[in-house]
Amino acid sequence: MEVIRSNFKDNLNKVYEAIEESDFLAIDGEFSGISDGPSVSALTNGFDTPEERYQKLKKHSMDFLLFQFGLCTFKYDDAEEKYIMKSFNFYIFPKPFNRNSPDVKFVCQSSSIDFLANQGFDFNKVFRNGIPYLNQEEERQLREQYDEKRSQANGAGSLSYLSPSSAKCPVTIPDDQKKFIEKVVEQIEDLLKNEESESLELEPCTGSVSEITYLLKNVFILKERYIVISKVDEEERKRREQQKQAKEQEELNDAVGFSRVVHAIANSGKLVIGHNMLLDVMHTIHQFYCPLPDDLSEFKEVTSCYSFSKLIPFIINNTSLAELEKRLKEVPFSPPKVESAEGFPSYDTASEQLHEAGYDAYITGLCFISMANFLGSFLSPRKNHVSARSKLVEPFFNKLFLMRVMDIPYLNLEGPDLQPKRDHVLHVSFPKEWKTSDLYQLFSAFGNIQVSWIDDTSAFVSLSQPEQVQIAVNTSRYAESYRIQTYAEYVEKKHEEKQAKRKCTEDSWKEMERKRLKTQCTPYVSQSRYYCVNSFTGTSTVGKRSMSPIEEETGSDDMEEGEGQDPENDQTDSCVESLSDGKKRAKKLKKVKTEQAPAGKCSAYAHGFLFCLKVPSQNTWD
Amino acid sequence: MEVIRSNFKDNLNKVYEAIEESDFLAIDGEFSGISDGPSVSALTNGFDTPEERYQKLKKHSMDFLLFQFGLCTFKYDDAEEKYIMKSFNFYIFPKPFNRNSPDVKFVCQSSSIDFLANQGFDFNKVFRNGIPYLNQEEERQLREQYDEKRSQANGAGSLSYLSPSSAKCPVTIPDDQKKFIEKVVEQIEDLLKNEESESLELEPCTGSVSEITYLLKNVFILKERYIVISKVDEEERKRREQQKQAKEQEELNDAVGFSRVVHAIANSGKLVIGHNMLLDVMHTIHQFYCPLPDDLSEFKEVTSCYSFSKLIPFIINNTSLAELEKRLKEVPFSPPKVESAEGFPSYDTASEQLHEAGYDAYITGLCFISMANFLGSFLSPRKNHVSARSKLVEPFFNKLFLMRVMDIPYLNLEGPDLQPKRDHVLHVSFPKEWKTSDLYQLFSAFGNIQVSWIDDTSAFVSLSQPEQVQIAVNTSRYAESYRIQTYAEYVEKKHEEKQAKRKCTEDSWKEMERKRLKTQCTPYVSQSRYYCVNSFTGTSTVGKRSMSPIEEETGSDDMEEGEGQDPENDQTDSCVESLSDGKKRAKKLKKVKTEQAPAGKCSAYAHGFLFCLKVPSQNTWD
Repeated sequence: MEVIRSNFKDNLNKVYEAIEESDFLAIDGEFSGISDGPSVSALTNGFDTPEERYQKLKKHSMDFLLFQFGLCTFKYDDAEEKYIMKSFNFYIFPKPFNRNSPDVKFVCQSSSIDFLANQGFDFNKVFRNGIPYLNQEEERQLREQYDEKRSQANGAGSLSYLSPSSAKCPVTIPDDQKKFIEKVVEQIEDLLKNEESESLELEPCTGSVSEITYLLKNVFILKERYIVISKVDEEERKRREQQKQAKEQEELNDAVGFSRVVHAIANSGKLVIGHNMLLDVMHTIHQFYCPLPDDLSEFKEVTSCYSFSKLIPFIINNTSLAELEKRLKEVPFSPPKVESAEGFPSYDTASEQLHEAGYDAYITGLCFISMANFLGSFLSPRKNHVSARSKLVEPFFNKLFLMRVMDIPYLNLEGPDLQPKRDHVLHVSFPKEWKTSDLYQLFSAFGNIQVSWIDDTSAFVSLSQPEQVQIAVNTSRYAESYRIQTYAEYVEKKHEEKQAKRKCTEDSWKEMERKRLKTQCTPYVSQSRYYCVNSFTGTSTVGKRSMSPIEEETGSDDMEEGEGQDPENDQTDSCVESLSDGKKRAKKLKKVKTEQAPAGKCSAYAHGFLFCLKVPSQNTWD
Repeated sequence: MEVIRSNFKDNLNKVYEAIEESDFLAIDGEFSGISDGPSVSALTNGFDTPEERYQKLKKHSMDFLLFQFGLCTFKYDDAEEKYIMKSFNFYIFPKPFNRNSPDVKFVCQSSSIDFLANQGFDFNKVFRNGIPYLNQEEERQLREQYDEKRSQANGAGSLSYLSPSSAKCPVTIPDDQKKFIEKVVEQIEDLLKNEESESLELEPCTGSVSEITYLLKNVFILKERYIVISKVDEEERKRREQQKQAKEQEELNDAVGFSRVVHAIANSGKLVIGHNMLLDVMHTIHQFYCPLPDDLSEFKEVTSCYSFSKLIPFIINNTSLAELEKRLKEVPFSPPKVESAEGFPSYDTASEQLHEAGYDAYITGLCFISMANFLGSFLSPRKNHVSARSKLVEPFFNKLFLMRVMDIPYLNLEGPDLQPKRDHVLHVSFPKEWKTSDLYQLFSAFGNIQVSWIDDTSAFVSLSQPEQVQIAVNTSRYAESYRIQTYAEYVEKKHEEKQAKRKCTEDSWKEMERKRLKTQCTPYVSQSRYYCVNSFTGTSTVGKRSMSPIEEETGSDDMEEGEGQDPENDQTDSCVESLSDGKKRAKKLKKVKTEQAPAGKCSAYAHGFLFCLKVPSQNTWD
């Protein structure tokens, strides 16, 4: 169902109801851009820590607009053994609702816009009919404005305008309005004396209506640009006051707009599914709740305090949503049984409508169902339907996939993140003319290596054997054109530099910059200069649905496919770690898996393997 | 005529021809926003210097996209005594044309977008069908890329791939591709030996095609993802090379796109008319030529070196384009005789299509014709048609209206700017609770004053009598809550602060920030901190066509109307100055005017008065 400004209010209860009755929700967002850095690929390095990734996305991606939000609710019908789904495709735009409302500026990235345009995305619908929204601070401010106006009206007393000197804020009436005001006062006094006349229409006023109304608040009602003054008794006054308050509340609700849907999702406590969901979650918090906090640990607190407590991300490698959906219809998975609810249009997965947020949310939900049900196949007796509430699913709660990080598969929203050993990783600096082939040549003695570009003049190089790390460092000791250090040394030095730089520059411009720049940029700039001076020519690339197919040469052709540097190779270790300090509640599942999981790297990925595609080839499962 | 990506190339000659044959051109732009500062009104203070205004617009307005460009050409038909006009409405969008093309980020301001949406602006047309463009630097880079590719192809020689060690950039073939390459080399050697076979189709290659093609450049032609290798003789090779070069040139032209129209306008040397044209000119330079220079004097050089040498701005107060057009149909003006050229759609001024750039350009042209012809009414004998080439018009060349600056009517592109005395102006600082009424009260002893807000806690206050300035400063000497200084003192202090701050912070972060931020922001930030720390709550507001009607309470309802603080009051002095150092060539006109111009302030505005509306009331001219 398409939801725009004009039909939003009428359908809001339908949305609430769908959320309330659902077993789980799937969401997806379309954005006006992905990265405002000089290059998209700068966003992801294979050895980003979760904190670094968070900071990069926060700094380079939050100025874009989330302008289409897909919500798909899924409710299981036990009798019919199928899911009933309701899909909503919301168009969103921060239309200013009055003179005092925030005039939002957002960035568009031409590659993303061009990509969406090619998909037939309807920008006119967004800009002409998008549903407005307010974040919590804006909502609070607007509420305060209304409250203030009301208390002014109530507190001004009956005729205090006659003695402005006694009022708390004396108002100086400009010379050119003195006559007008004097006449009004005279006319009002006449009106009050005269029992026959009930109201009084003033001449069009030249001056500031608001100033005059402020003076006369309690005794007149404004009608367009004319001022009509009516006598009202206390009861009538109260009735009108209540009317006004109800109207104000409605205006407030209208202004909060789409944020009400997000609040409903958050407050429902329902399981929320997304595909590569980190960016969606960050944008949702940023746009509809509050500016993103300075660091990852605070972000985790925010997500928990806003009740986004049951996000399940898919942990997916090298697979677009469309590919994924196709794959999950095949053995060993089974295609999910899903039907549209009555009155809701159904999507046809055969004729793809990818990159409409509502459709993408729908597909995401389908994938989840297939995956969850697949989990049931490991039980004995086999279970064909695994509910979203099943214990089997819990181990995957609150883990957001970290695209293209080699050895940290996910960001853990509900606890500390994995800290993989990086004792096989080197940090190499070199002249900016160097290419990947130069690095291959330099390390030719060390067998297979993997290169993760950081910027023009540095990269991480991971060796296959940690023991060789020190040898590499030693041999480079007297090299002039390049420099090699261990990952540990690199981290240490970076930390020191950060501290020093912060001290030096913080006082002089941080405060001012904070005012000038959009809030979310500043803290990061001052803390992590490192990323600012880099010139972003890495090889890995973040993927997101609104990404353009036009990419750096070093990037992939289709972002959806997420062709990285074979992240699986290095995921093994960390996943074992994640297991060893992992969830007790997953024990049962683990046991099943240890018995049945196929050999190879994927099996080492423990309870993550369910959602870990490339799906093992079919015959592995026979 | 609507020009979009798909019909741009076909109509380009029509555009060139229209420009070439025209007597003058009118232009107009629509933007994705006006000001990215926290408030639009911060952009204009009544006492901005031209340099300050330039810096503000540069800092706060250049990240927006000029996405519709109106061009209307006017050619006078002497026989028929009427103008023939051709109107073009170009949709513009920086569509990335390949992997290496710039991925432009631009800002949208929701109030501006909402305003345009309400006018029926077609965003889909912009984003789906907008004509791409390159600025001069981007064009140069692209040209270099092609040149480099070509010289690589020519210089690589016939079979140098066989001995990579002798090549300038040795290429290391990755292990996994070695077999493939070896096989290719074998196959090619066979092909060369075998006189019967003419070409060779390779297996689909898994590795980087570009790396392989680089090696084999001169002996094969690429077909999609397969590699086909053909034997070619020298003649065939040259023919293909020429074909390729022609294709590259066409690709280059396509990428330069709309900039070619701007170049044609600039190079034509024709008179270019605009309405409140400063922002249009700045955006045009910024988007299609080069980032705006650091200061105003350089900007003036750029405009002259790009041959934008005959801009005539309208100097208009308190009048929207629509109002202006209506007014200029009435006595003492006469409605211009204009017809659309054959094959060009005509605009109907009765059913307004304002805020389509093409239409606005058309109206702008009409206004110019009325005004220019009106000039002829002062000659004896009276002249009904004054050509765009007339000496009468010259005094208005290259003066860009400075909206809402009280005492500097225009920015002079071809010389130093006016420097009005500001000896009646005070700079007042006060607690942020203060309102305009507090300032009226504070200065109540000094008669009529005018307040120009700078920020929350300061404003310029102009007194009617300069002699009172010192009295005001003296009486405030012991005041605690506020502080008064003369304009001269204020300027002096600001200058000192700037110097000091620049020194302190420049080294530590300027370089880095330059990289991070869009280029045009940086220099200004470091030079004029002053504007950064202000919080922008002034009363005056800049006006521009894409401005939303929703505005700050202190701003005006309709930006087009440009309701400021009655700028005429203070324009008198400066205009007399501008006269005294003014253009000799305007002498004749001046004489006429001194005799005939009506009494009052407007007459003192000398040769500016023609374009100075409010137009004097009709009976003045009888």
